[in-house]
Amino acid sequence: MDKMTWFTLLSTGGALAAIAVGVIFPAIAMGRAITQALDALARQPEAEKAISRTLFIGLAMIESLAIYVLVIVLIVLFRNPLLEYLLK
Amino acid sequence: MDKMTWFTLLSTGGALAAIAVGVIFPAIAMGRAITQALDALARQPEAEKAISRTLFIGLAMIESLAIYVLVIVLIVLFRNPLLEYLLK
Amino acid sequence: MDKMTWFTLLSTGGALAAIAVGVIFPAIAMGRAITQALDALARQPEAEKAISRTLFIGLAMIESLAIYVLVIVLIVLFRNPLLEYLLK
Amino acid sequence: MDKMTWFTLLSTGGALAAIAVGVIFPAIAMGRAITQALDALARQPEAEKAISRTLFIGLAMIESLAIYVLVIVLIVLFRNPLLEYLLK
Amino acid sequence: MDKMTWFTLLSTGGALAAIAVGVIFPAIAMGRAITQALDALARQPEAEKAISRTLFIGLAMIESLAIYVLVIVLIVLFRNPLLEYLLK
Amino acid sequence: MDKMTWFTLLSTGGALAAIAVGVIFPAIAMGRAITQALDALARQPEAEKAISRTLFIGLAMIESLAIYVLVIVLIVLFRNPLLEYLLK
Amino acid sequence: MDKMTWFTLLSTGGALAAIAVGVIFPAIAMGRAITQALDALARQPEAEKAISRTLFIGLAMIESLAIYVLVIVLIVLFRNPLLEYLLK
Amino acid sequence: MDKMTWFTLLSTGGALAAIAVGVIFPAIAMGRAITQALDALARQPEAEKAISRTLFIGLAMIESLAIYVLVIVLIVLFRNPLLEYLLK
Amino acid sequence: MDKMTWFTLLSTGGALAAIAVGVIFPAIAMGRAITQALDALARQPEAEKAISRTLFIGLAMIESLAIYVLVIVLIVLFRNPLLEYLLK
Amino acid sequence: MDKMTWFTLLSTGGALAAIAVGVIFPAIAMGRAITQALDALARQPEAEKAISRTLFIGLAMIESLAIYVLVIVLIVLFRNPLLEYLLK
Amino acid sequence: MDKMTWFTLLSTGGALAAIAVGVIFPAIAMGRAITQALDALARQPEAEKAISRTLFIGLAMIESLAIYVLVIVLIVLFRNPLLEYLLK
Amino acid sequence: MDKMTWFTLLSTGGALAAIAVGVIFPAIAMGRAITQALDALARQPEAEKAISRTLFIGLAMIESLAIYVLVIVLIVLFRNPLLEYLLK
Amino acid sequence: MDKMTWFTLLSTGGALAAIAVGVIFPAIAMGRAITQALDALARQPEAEKAISRTLFIGLAMIESLAIYVLVIVLIVLFRNPLLEYLLK
Amino acid sequence: MDKMTWFTLLSTGGALAAIAVGVIFPAIAMGRAITQALDALARQPEAEKAISRTLFIGLAMIESLAIYVLVIVLIVLFRNPLLEYLLK
Repeated sequence: MDKMTWFTLLSTGGALAAIAVGVIFPAIAMGRAITQALDALARQPEAEKAISRTLFIGLAMIESLAIYVLVIVLIVLFRNPLLEYLLK
Repeated sequence: MDKMTWFTLLSTGGALAAIAVGVIFPAIAMGRAITQALDALARQPEAEKAISRTLFIGLAMIESLAIYVLVIVLIVLFRNPLLEYLLK
Repeated sequence: MDKMTWFTLLSTGGALAAIAVGVIFPAIAMGRAITQALDALARQPEAEKAISRTLFIGLAMIESLAIYVLVIVLIVLFRNPLLEYLLK
Repeated sequence: MDKMTWFTLLSTGGALAAIAVGVIFPAIAMGRAITQALDALARQPEAEKAISRTLFIGLAMIESLAIYVLVIVLIVLFRNPLLEYLLK
Repeated sequence: MDKMTWFTLLSTGGALAAIAVGVIFPAIAMGRAITQALDALARQPEAEKAISRTLFIGLAMIESLAIYVLVIVLIVLFRNPLLEYLLK
Repeated sequence: MDKMTWFTLLSTGGALAAIAVGVIFPAIAMGRAITQALDALARQPEAEKAISRTLFIGLAMIESLAIYVLVIVLIVLFRNPLLEYLLK
Repeated sequence: MDKMTWFTLLSTGGALAAIAVGVIFPAIAMGRAITQALDALARQPEAEKAISRTLFIGLAMIESLAIYVLVIVLIVLFRNPLLEYLLK
Repeated sequence: MDKMTWFTLLSTGGALAAIAVGVIFPAIAMGRAITQALDALARQPEAEKAISRTLFIGLAMIESLAIYVLVIVLIVLFRNPLLEYLLK
Repeated sequence: MDKMTWFTLLSTGGALAAIAVGVIFPAIAMGRAITQALDALARQPEAEKAISRTLFIGLAMIESLAIYVLVIVLIVLFRNPLLEYLLK
Repeated sequence: MDKMTWFTLLSTGGALAAIAVGVIFPAIAMGRAITQALDALARQPEAEKAISRTLFIGLAMIESLAIYVLVIVLIVLFRNPLLEYLLK
Repeated sequence: MDKMTWFTLLSTGGALAAIAVGVIFPAIAMGRAITQALDALARQPEAEKAISRTLFIGLAMIESLAIYVLVIVLIVLFRNPLLEYLLK
Repeated sequence: MDKMTWFTLLSTGGALAAIAVGVIFPAIAMGRAITQALDALARQPEAEKAISRTLFIGLAMIESLAIYVLVIVLIVLFRNPLLEYLLK
Repeated sequence: MDKMTWFTLLSTGGALAAIAVGVIFPAIAMGRAITQALDALARQPEAEKAISRTLFIGLAMIESLAIYVLVIVLIVLFRNPLLEYLLK
Repeated sequence: MDKMTWFTLLSTGGALAAIAVGVIFPAIAMGRAITQALDALARQPEAEKAISRTLFIGLAMIESLAIYVLVIVLIVLFRNPLLEYLLK
């Protein structure tokens, strides 16, 4: 096989693996945060506003980690800066 | 084997692996969130509305992670941008 | 072996693996949710309606994850879009 | 060895592996659900009816996951749609 | 070695592995269920009837999973439908 | 080496492995059940009869799983149905 | 090396491995049962007779599992039924 | 393949792997911190200000770790100082 | 190397491995039993006799498992019944 | 490939791996420390000053560990003292 | 290399491995027993004599397991009965 | 490749690995110590001085372990005593 | 390479590995024993003498295990009895 | 490569690995001991002297284990007794 084939195979396989692995722990972290928020709600229903705000800020920061992965995956799939050295 | 065969094999196998791995942790996270919601319901039945809302927003955000995986899998199966370098 | 043989072997083996792995964690998540629902029932028998509703919505969302896997498996077994590149 | 031999070996081995792995986690999940149901019975004997109903619906949904695996295994052993590409 | 030898080796080894692995988790699940039933008996001796009924139904459903494995193992050892493609 | 040698090696090694692995989890499950029975006895000495009956039925069902493994091992060692294809 | 050498090596190595692995979990299970019996004794000294009886029956059943392994190991070392196919 | 191809493949694959692995534990750590903050809010609603400040400083320090990884990944993808030795 | 060398190497290595592995779990099990006995002594000093008797019987049964391993190891090192097939 | 290529590949890959692995446990340790600080704040709001001081000193010492890794990574990427032996 | 070299290498390496592995679990078991003895002392200082006696008997039995390993290691290093087959 | 290349590659890779692995457990240990110090502060604010002194001595001793690793890594990178045998 | 080289390499590498692995579990066991001793001191300050004596005897017995490893390592490095077979 | 190169590579790599692995568990053990000492201080501030003395003796004994590793590593790097067999 020529070099473009290797590059294509590795990029495709790597992208699939990275996105599959990369959502693992954000998912777990979100699950825990939501779990605790529900627990907090059950204990202090009147603090619902503060709980919701903290929860959503936290979910957003965790989501940002998953999006870092998604961004690197899309860079690799659609616009890889190292590709020019191969096409030279 | 020629290069298209390798590409097809890797894409098919990778897609199967990615979707199988990618639903693992969202499933776990959902399970935990639902578990805690049921626990919260049992402790504070009158806060059912706030609990349900928080639960469903959380499930939606976790579902979004599983859908990122599904999207990358479908891109790889149906419309892979790196395919043009192979067909050239 | 020719390329169709490789493709057939990998698809068959991958489908078996994916379905076997893919039901693992939905099963665990369901088990936890049901477990907690039973616990909640034992603590608050009068909240049975809310508990049942939350449980069944949650089971449906987890089931949806297992069905994503089943769908990809069936696409690979019965109608793989990458097959046309092999038959060309 | 010819290609049919590979196909037969892989299908047989894969079927054995898939069924052995595929019952693992449904078994665990059932074990947990039954465990909790017994615990709930011991705490709230008068809620036996609701507990039994929830338990059996839950066991049925988990059983459905094991049956997905069994179905894919039987499709692979008895009527594999990819077989026609090999016999061509 | 010829192809029948490979087939025989793989079937024998696979059958041993599958049955050994396949009883692992049903055994664990049964252990847990029985454990909990004994615990429930110790806490609510007067609910012995309901506990026994739930326990035995549950054990039967878990046993069914182990029997799925046994059935596939025996099909592979004694009457494998894929064998005809090899003997052709 | 000829094919009978491979067959003999694999059968012997597989039988040793299967029996060694196959008693692992029944042993654990029995350990747990006995453990709990002793705990139950310490808490409710007067329910000794019900506890003993449940324990022994449970131990018998777990023992049955270990015996499935033993049966398959003995079939492989003494009377393997696939042997005729090798001797042909 | 000739085939008897392979057979001897595998049987010796397998026997050592099987006995070393095969006592693992019976040892653990016994440890747990004894542990719990001591705990039960400390809590209900007057139930010593019932506790001892249950403990010793349980230890005997677990010991039986270790003896299954020992039996298969001795069959393999001293009188392997598959040996006749090799000597033919 | 020539050396630039190896370099490209390794850099692309390594970048995907590093970003996927590198967000794992920051995600977990964030999840724990947010979880505890919600718990603290539920116990001491009036200390919301101190809790929020500590939480956000902590999240920022953890985020800094994820950004170290992102920086190294981007250096490798876009401006690798070792590249000059290859191009010489 | 000739066959006696292989046999010697494997027997020596296997004996070292088997004894090292084979004392693992009896050691753990003994540790637990002694631990619990000390705990029981601290809670019920007056039941010291029953505790000691149960402990020592239990230690003896666990020790028997370690001795099974030692016996097989010594058989392999000093008097292996399969050796005659090699010397023939 | 020549030796500079090997050196470049290993340095790049190693740097990615080291930074990805090296932030794992500082992240976890920070997460735990922050978690506990939040818990302490919730229990003793009036000790906020001592808690904050201890927390920030601790975070700095953990951060120093992550920076050791970053320093070694940057030395390897930008100014490796062993490079002169290669260029000779 | 000749056969004595292999034998020497394997014996030396195996002895190092066996002793390193063989002290693992006795160490753990001793640690636990001592730990519990200290706990028991703190709870029942007046039972110090019984506790010490049980502890030292237990430590001696665990030490015996480590010494089994040491004995086999020294037999292998200094006086291996299988050596005569090699020197013949 | 010549021997200096191997030496350079191994030293560079080993240094990266050692520093990445070597900070793992000091980081964890520090995290635990700080965590507990915060907990102690929350329970006994008036013992702050003794707690701080113990904590900082402990952190210093743990830091010393990480520095042992750093020292060996720097010896390997900058002044390896075994290098003279290679240059001879 | 000649046989003395292999022997030197294996002995050096094995000694490093054995000492690194061999201190693992004694370290853990000591950590636990010291931990518990501190806990016991906090609960029963007046039993300090008995606690110290038990702790130091226990530490000495665990240290003896680490010293077994050190002794075997030094025998291998400085005076290996199997060396004479190599030099012959 | 000649034999001195192998020796140098293995010694360097082994030294890095041994020191990195060898500080793992002393670090953990120290972390636990310090953790518990802080806990003890918080519960019994007046027993500070006994706690400190026990803690520092314990830390010294654990540190001795790490120093065993460091000593073997330095012997291997600077003055390996097996080196003379290589230089002969």
